[in-house]
Amino acid sequence: MSDFATTSERVKVPHDPLYVEYIDRERYIEELEYQFYTLIDTHRAWLVMLVDKGIVPTKDAAAVLRGLKELKSKGPEAIEYKPGYNDVYTHIEQWLIDKVGREPVAHLSLARTRPEPLMRMYFRERILDCLEEMYNFRTAVLDSAEKNKDTVMPGYTHQQHGQPTTFGAYLLAIHDPLARASAWLEMAYATTNESTMGCGALAGTAFPIDRYQVAELLGFDSIMESTIASVSTGDHLVQSTSAANDAMITLSRMCLDMEQWSNTEAKFMEPAPEFSDVSSMMPQKKNPCVFEFARGKISRVLGDTVGIYAGLLKSFYADVIDLEMTYGPSLRVLDQTRATMKFMTGVINTMIIHSKRMLETTAEGFSTVSELADEIFRSTGLPHRLAHSIVANTVTRALHDGMVATDITAEYVEKIAGEVIGRKLGLSDAQVKKALDPVEFVKSHDVPGGPAPAETLRIVKERRKKLAEERSRLAGRRKKVTEAEKALDQAAENLISGK
Amino acid sequence: MSDFATTSERVKVPHDPLYVEYIDRERYIEELEYQFYTLIDTHRAWLVMLVDKGIVPTKDAAAVLRGLKELKSKGPEAIEYKPGYNDVYTHIEQWLIDKVGREPVAHLSLARTRPEPLMRMYFRERILDCLEEMYNFRTAVLDSAEKNKDTVMPGYTHQQHGQPTTFGAYLLAIHDPLARASAWLEMAYATTNESTMGCGALAGTAFPIDRYQVAELLGFDSIMESTIASVSTGDHLVQSTSAANDAMITLSRMCLDMEQWSNTEAKFMEPAPEFSDVSSMMPQKKNPCVFEFARGKISRVLGDTVGIYAGLLKSFYADVIDLEMTYGPSLRVLDQTRATMKFMTGVINTMIIHSKRMLETTAEGFSTVSELADEIFRSTGLPHRLAHSIVANTVTRALHDGMVATDITAEYVEKIAGEVIGRKLGLSDAQVKKALDPVEFVKSHDVPGGPAPAETLRIVKERRKKLAEERSRLAGRRKKVTEAEKALDQAAENLISGK
Amino acid sequence: MSDFATTSERVKVPHDPLYVEYIDRERYIEELEYQFYTLIDTHRAWLVMLVDKGIVPTKDAAAVLRGLKELKSKGPEAIEYKPGYNDVYTHIEQWLIDKVGREPVAHLSLARTRPEPLMRMYFRERILDCLEEMYNFRTAVLDSAEKNKDTVMPGYTHQQHGQPTTFGAYLLAIHDPLARASAWLEMAYATTNESTMGCGALAGTAFPIDRYQVAELLGFDSIMESTIASVSTGDHLVQSTSAANDAMITLSRMCLDMEQWSNTEAKFMEPAPEFSDVSSMMPQKKNPCVFEFARGKISRVLGDTVGIYAGLLKSFYADVIDLEMTYGPSLRVLDQTRATMKFMTGVINTMIIHSKRMLETTAEGFSTVSELADEIFRSTGLPHRLAHSIVANTVTRALHDGMVATDITAEYVEKIAGEVIGRKLGLSDAQVKKALDPVEFVKSHDVPGGPAPAETLRIVKERRKKLAEERSRLAGRRKKVTEAEKALDQAAENLISGK
Amino acid sequence: MSDFATTSERVKVPHDPLYVEYIDRERYIEELEYQFYTLIDTHRAWLVMLVDKGIVPTKDAAAVLRGLKELKSKGPEAIEYKPGYNDVYTHIEQWLIDKVGREPVAHLSLARTRPEPLMRMYFRERILDCLEEMYNFRTAVLDSAEKNKDTVMPGYTHQQHGQPTTFGAYLLAIHDPLARASAWLEMAYATTNESTMGCGALAGTAFPIDRYQVAELLGFDSIMESTIASVSTGDHLVQSTSAANDAMITLSRMCLDMEQWSNTEAKFMEPAPEFSDVSSMMPQKKNPCVFEFARGKISRVLGDTVGIYAGLLKSFYADVIDLEMTYGPSLRVLDQTRATMKFMTGVINTMIIHSKRMLETTAEGFSTVSELADEIFRSTGLPHRLAHSIVANTVTRALHDGMVATDITAEYVEKIAGEVIGRKLGLSDAQVKKALDPVEFVKSHDVPGGPAPAETLRIVKERRKKLAEERSRLAGRRKKVTEAEKALDQAAENLISGK
Repeated sequence: MSDFATTSERVKVPHDPLYVEYIDRERYIEELEYQFYTLIDTHRAWLVMLVDKGIVPTKDAAAVLRGLKELKSKGPEAIEYKPGYNDVYTHIEQWLIDKVGREPVAHLSLARTRPEPLMRMYFRERILDCLEEMYNFRTAVLDSAEKNKDTVMPGYTHQQHGQPTTFGAYLLAIHDPLARASAWLEMAYATTNESTMGCGALAGTAFPIDRYQVAELLGFDSIMESTIASVSTGDHLVQSTSAANDAMITLSRMCLDMEQWSNTEAKFMEPAPEFSDVSSMMPQKKNPCVFEFARGKISRVLGDTVGIYAGLLKSFYADVIDLEMTYGPSLRVLDQTRATMKFMTGVINTMIIHSKRMLETTAEGFSTVSELADEIFRSTGLPHRLAHSIVANTVTRALHDGMVATDITAEYVEKIAGEVIGRKLGLSDAQVKKALDPVEFVKSHDVPGGPAPAETLRIVKERRKKLAEERSRLAGRRKKVTEAEKALDQAAENLISGK
Repeated sequence: MSDFATTSERVKVPHDPLYVEYIDRERYIEELEYQFYTLIDTHRAWLVMLVDKGIVPTKDAAAVLRGLKELKSKGPEAIEYKPGYNDVYTHIEQWLIDKVGREPVAHLSLARTRPEPLMRMYFRERILDCLEEMYNFRTAVLDSAEKNKDTVMPGYTHQQHGQPTTFGAYLLAIHDPLARASAWLEMAYATTNESTMGCGALAGTAFPIDRYQVAELLGFDSIMESTIASVSTGDHLVQSTSAANDAMITLSRMCLDMEQWSNTEAKFMEPAPEFSDVSSMMPQKKNPCVFEFARGKISRVLGDTVGIYAGLLKSFYADVIDLEMTYGPSLRVLDQTRATMKFMTGVINTMIIHSKRMLETTAEGFSTVSELADEIFRSTGLPHRLAHSIVANTVTRALHDGMVATDITAEYVEKIAGEVIGRKLGLSDAQVKKALDPVEFVKSHDVPGGPAPAETLRIVKERRKKLAEERSRLAGRRKKVTEAEKALDQAAENLISGK
Repeated sequence: MSDFATTSERVKVPHDPLYVEYIDRERYIEELEYQFYTLIDTHRAWLVMLVDKGIVPTKDAAAVLRGLKELKSKGPEAIEYKPGYNDVYTHIEQWLIDKVGREPVAHLSLARTRPEPLMRMYFRERILDCLEEMYNFRTAVLDSAEKNKDTVMPGYTHQQHGQPTTFGAYLLAIHDPLARASAWLEMAYATTNESTMGCGALAGTAFPIDRYQVAELLGFDSIMESTIASVSTGDHLVQSTSAANDAMITLSRMCLDMEQWSNTEAKFMEPAPEFSDVSSMMPQKKNPCVFEFARGKISRVLGDTVGIYAGLLKSFYADVIDLEMTYGPSLRVLDQTRATMKFMTGVINTMIIHSKRMLETTAEGFSTVSELADEIFRSTGLPHRLAHSIVANTVTRALHDGMVATDITAEYVEKIAGEVIGRKLGLSDAQVKKALDPVEFVKSHDVPGGPAPAETLRIVKERRKKLAEERSRLAGRRKKVTEAEKALDQAAENLISGK
Repeated sequence: MSDFATTSERVKVPHDPLYVEYIDRERYIEELEYQFYTLIDTHRAWLVMLVDKGIVPTKDAAAVLRGLKELKSKGPEAIEYKPGYNDVYTHIEQWLIDKVGREPVAHLSLARTRPEPLMRMYFRERILDCLEEMYNFRTAVLDSAEKNKDTVMPGYTHQQHGQPTTFGAYLLAIHDPLARASAWLEMAYATTNESTMGCGALAGTAFPIDRYQVAELLGFDSIMESTIASVSTGDHLVQSTSAANDAMITLSRMCLDMEQWSNTEAKFMEPAPEFSDVSSMMPQKKNPCVFEFARGKISRVLGDTVGIYAGLLKSFYADVIDLEMTYGPSLRVLDQTRATMKFMTGVINTMIIHSKRMLETTAEGFSTVSELADEIFRSTGLPHRLAHSIVANTVTRALHDGMVATDITAEYVEKIAGEVIGRKLGLSDAQVKKALDPVEFVKSHDVPGGPAPAETLRIVKERRKKLAEERSRLAGRRKKVTEAEKALDQAAENLISGK
């Protein structure tokens, strides 16, 4: 809401104690997180522009800028909540009036709506923080994929051994959707990083202000043109939080897999002791609670996101509190995503992999038999259908005989072949052994994106290169904001010192 | 997790700093809210029972009880978070060991899982707090309904005037679903207030404990039998939070109506100044932000509820962190519901109603013309279809002539009747006036639950009686918990003093 | 919307083709499911009451009732969608006009709003259908619990063996929350089964109608008093669907457990072949897809429920399309819940349990060692802490020596005891064996609700008794509706035949 | 699931009737929508590639391709559901076997998992359909914005008149977030349009297949490398549906505004008769139900989206039914979004705007007084604070005197100025009149994105240019798919005819 007067005139009717306790105070506390430093900066940029445009005298601006400089150096502790002054804006305004007087401070609210673009300035940095941890997590995933490119394990379909794969290939399958979520979050950064300043209460202003100059002073990439959209839209919040959700969904599914692979029956892997909960009673019992915790975080993130969606969906398209009420959950979504990526990076980096157990389990299962059928098809020219029929019968018999897959010999297969097609296939033991060997299986499955170790290595290298580019863009964004801040410092300093 | 040993043996491997910062500390902070006093009480009740059953010597129990007494009087400030001791349980255990020694403290974890039933004890009180504010809000609604039983206003269908009603009748329509939500939340209280204590890690214990005695000492209504369900289920959270949601949905819809009825065009009502945001610039402009704020709360409540649903839905049915991770959002749902009911009670109690404007607007609209048709039907015996045809034509003509409903006279209607059916109806001016008078309209609409003021009064009285019964049950529940606490104090005191 | 005229006058402006295709037709199709028979019945009950009250002449009513009788016998196929007549109400009205003429049909809309209480009449039966399948599922669970009261299995904490339990005890832990969800859904039935008829457009009517008579003729338990709430509230939908959700959450968690227990590593159980997806290639491979499918249903149910919550939350509190738009998802929630309960009943009834594998796995794990510590404590009087210290050291050593739990002997323990406390404990081999035997473990864990088979049996019996009472209430509700239908048939017949 | 054998061997154990009714049939019906034509195409592309690579003999491939050609021309009606053959794949396989024999058909399942990439092929077209309607809606919004660039209306803050704006400026504020949602949905198209074919059951294959050739034959932009991600990820669904949600949130908020602006009190606008529900009784009453209906759709979309999120979040990261169960809701989200955009295009294009009423309402309110203060500041050099103080006092007095804003004269202001600052300001009547004239207000508020008509015009032109580029990209995508289809037809024809 645009408001040109100062506090003391404005607050005429004191709020009801219920209002103060349940509304004012809560909003104040939530606002303080994202408004304190951003409000100081927008105040500064606005004054610099107003002086440039000849709208406000240098002297007044300098006085206020001096006050702001002091306030910034003191930090949020300088102000304390007073029931009478409902929001952070008013608290800071009053602090400035006490320092530099009423007249110059009155310029601050000229042609502005108070809350814009404070959240965007704060939120863009939270997006970058979140992106950074997603990059770190992806780095850990790629590192572990490389390390485990030969770690053969069962690949599951419907909780049963399907085909052999490697833990490295699995991790790459986790990486790629996360890379897409990262790109999506980058898009959300661009959506967020538009300056809404100069939008007035909703209709801009008739003063000859310069929206572009202000945007530049505050490190924005561009301005959001529509002054109504500037006060009304929350699509940057929807876009950011749904991108974070998408990343969390992939993470959640990975955690469920790992939770299962860490259980007493599978024992394929376990979080490092420093990431496990331990039990003094049963020294062998380490609880991989970290996956449950991560999954718990993820459902909270989903909840907060639904709160944001529903919060916006139901509200008028205008400068409404409904929009402001989605800020808290939005910050929480990014913060929880960042934190989860961060500790999961530690988990992945230190995870203990029982590769021997994984390989043995894979070998004993029958997930390689499809390869045996293919081998018969390739080496004998027998129609597919018959090749598979022989293998199917072999497996049935083997199970009946209490064998595991690696017990099957060429002789055993030939006997079945005799029964099915009335003749031998001419298979060698080496052929059968190789077809049933899960290590050979993954090596031979070398289509693009397949589990072959060489393919894993190739992809890891490519992904690392792209990730480096993403990190570089992130650094560029951080730098742009930092340098704008410096330029603003300088411009303010020039006015203060009368240059 | 059941754990019979003490801290120092248990924590062998220090957690990774990431784990400490992002998991341990966060959980500790969340737990502290609901575990501090409840843990002291369960410790006490457990010891009293163990001594009664001859499982633990009185002397040991007395020593620990003395320590607990001191800790309770000091409050949560007595302990401080240490990275090494991950949860609240361990922190308190260590504090007790420092006070009374290792041996007696070891009894505390005998045959128990640590977290049960701490949250239930805390949560049941939050349910009662929430219920109490729902009752207060409903009282305000009934009071205002009585006060506004004659406040005629347009009833809307699809945003257009439909039939006249009263603001009192509207408020009763808000009250009744809230009464059902209250009953639902009472049911959720019963679901919550079952003692899970004695469930062991999941299989109970072979010690001859008495689950019923402990339940009584802790003010529970009954025990939850299944020891597995005791550590696994979260249905009390689902039931409580969805009941709260239901109440909030009704509130949300009321707020949207009032938001609209407070706008510049309607001006039917406005929150009192002490519940409005004011503008110094435009003294006439008071912002009814309170409705936006309430609706913002409500969508947060929805979000948290979805987080709880999804959090449970996705988890194994066992003692998992996923369950614990729904506690924070569950508490938030009840707390936000309670707070919203509380400040909305203030809003309703002080709302400024512009009844004159409401009546005028109603009279000028054409929402009473259905009554005119009914009157023609009743007084002339003309078929419905024709009666309505006459009225429809009358309205079309009146609109064309720029009239409002109250401009219509008997003569005007008779002229149309002549055109439609070729003869007069014999209506008197008084008849027409009465039919079109919204005050008469609401008076005559006296079916059960209709807007007639006498009917509103009747219902308000009935509802107040039922609400008094609800309040009485609430008081009974509070008393039961308080008296159990006193009995537990006494039992502990007896052991301490060796009686 | 209350509307006293008939179709041909009403539909003056034809709808845009877009409107017809995307709105009218879709609504028509959705409405037809729940409005066809219910509309015929409300028409009939309304006419019977209007004649009784002297508002409508018998002759007219009889004519319309004859038409309705014919329409009912022909079923929904009798009418076909025509773009001009937007809703089901209008289609049926037009059909009746064609049969019996305009004048008598005009009475039908006297003092009514069209959609009330059609959905309530249809929905209450869907609630009963859903309840019935929940009862059937619970019966299957209790039967299986009884059958598996001795089926020892590992109880998990954080995916690791915690304490032994039985599959029977597990199933009871599933049963009890479902019993609470059933009670909740019964409450929702009561909330739903209130007659809203006679509510008018929102303000009732001035005609001397009898809302109670109509309610009785339509099999309602009572009337919903507030005429505004009658057209506005959707809390019966919220209550019903959240109860269904709660049941589905418990089911979802059970399915996740069973999904895991059916995997290649655990092989504890598997769905019967007739509930599995099979693979011709690998005869040993049966896919327990049924759990995935059930869990997929459950997340759809969650989605629909959120759609209902958000749909109501955002809407004005009045007769709005928003409310109607929650009907489709509400029906889907109940239908999906019913269907899932139904096929899961088949799954539970036929599930193949590998009890030998479960027992062996349990015995080899170390989940019984807490009982060994308790036995030492009980038989020697050694302080807890020391008893546990001896056992902890025993387990560490055993793991180091590559032993499983059942390899531990009294001698082995005594050796460790010697090292820890400098003397022997005097344990017999029988004592040690018994303490470590999971079958003995569950037998001795006989606290109320514990895994002891006798306790499972006791609870199953009690639960069956309560379930029988629930089934009896269900039958009573069905009967009440059927008998009201018969009485309505008779009353209509009397008018038709001029009695 | 990869499966090399044919139906008759495979289906050994008939499914339970419950399984057939509640699982098989439902899945079959859902699958048929997106699998029929896409399966024919993937069969064809796979055979073309297998022949090229020398894996399958031309003769066999030609036989199957002939069968497929016939099936395609017959359409889905050619096959009918049979309980024994559970999915669409098996039904089509059996149809082919009946036509061309078992041996050649067996090649079809070589090295493939059945469901990939069928849904992606279908879904990408649904994304384009949805995008196209979003473009059409945005075109309508831009057209209306241009037409209403001079339609002055009150701009609201918290439901009160804030500053004047125009309906054109409002519409632009709706347009821009929708443009961002469109870009987001384009990103989702790219995520979706990756070929997963050749992924095998999860590990690809050891046959020398060419994944790139298949991708090209099926009109994909690229391949999804990871074979595990190919069967596991659902991030394209999350991304698409959340983009659609974002668009719907903006639409929902617009509808709420318009719902309010169409109400009896505001009467600013109304949907055209062909988009309204009419009432015969009250000819003046047209119900703008279309906004309620649209908002109802939107909450269903939210629900379905949550179902998708939760459905994926909870599932193992593998080829699970959970993923497949999100397809139905995903299609529904896009379809509902498309339909809503489509009928809302009609609504916007035909909406009746009461611009005179909007202007009068704006003028009478006091939303222009901030401009009067600015004018005093600019023309007199008086400090802001004082200028505003004079205006605030003027408004208070005017309200007290029962005046509306346009009643205020220069003399009236000067009188107040005299009281506040003790002297006159030298304002002319023309100055005051102009400052208070809302038409002048919007003209002068010409910052970038402000409500000045010239600015609206400039932006509309720019947006149209960008939209044309988007439409061109859409056409390019459609063309690419169509041409791939043609090339595939040709390649199949060549094999059939033995070229």
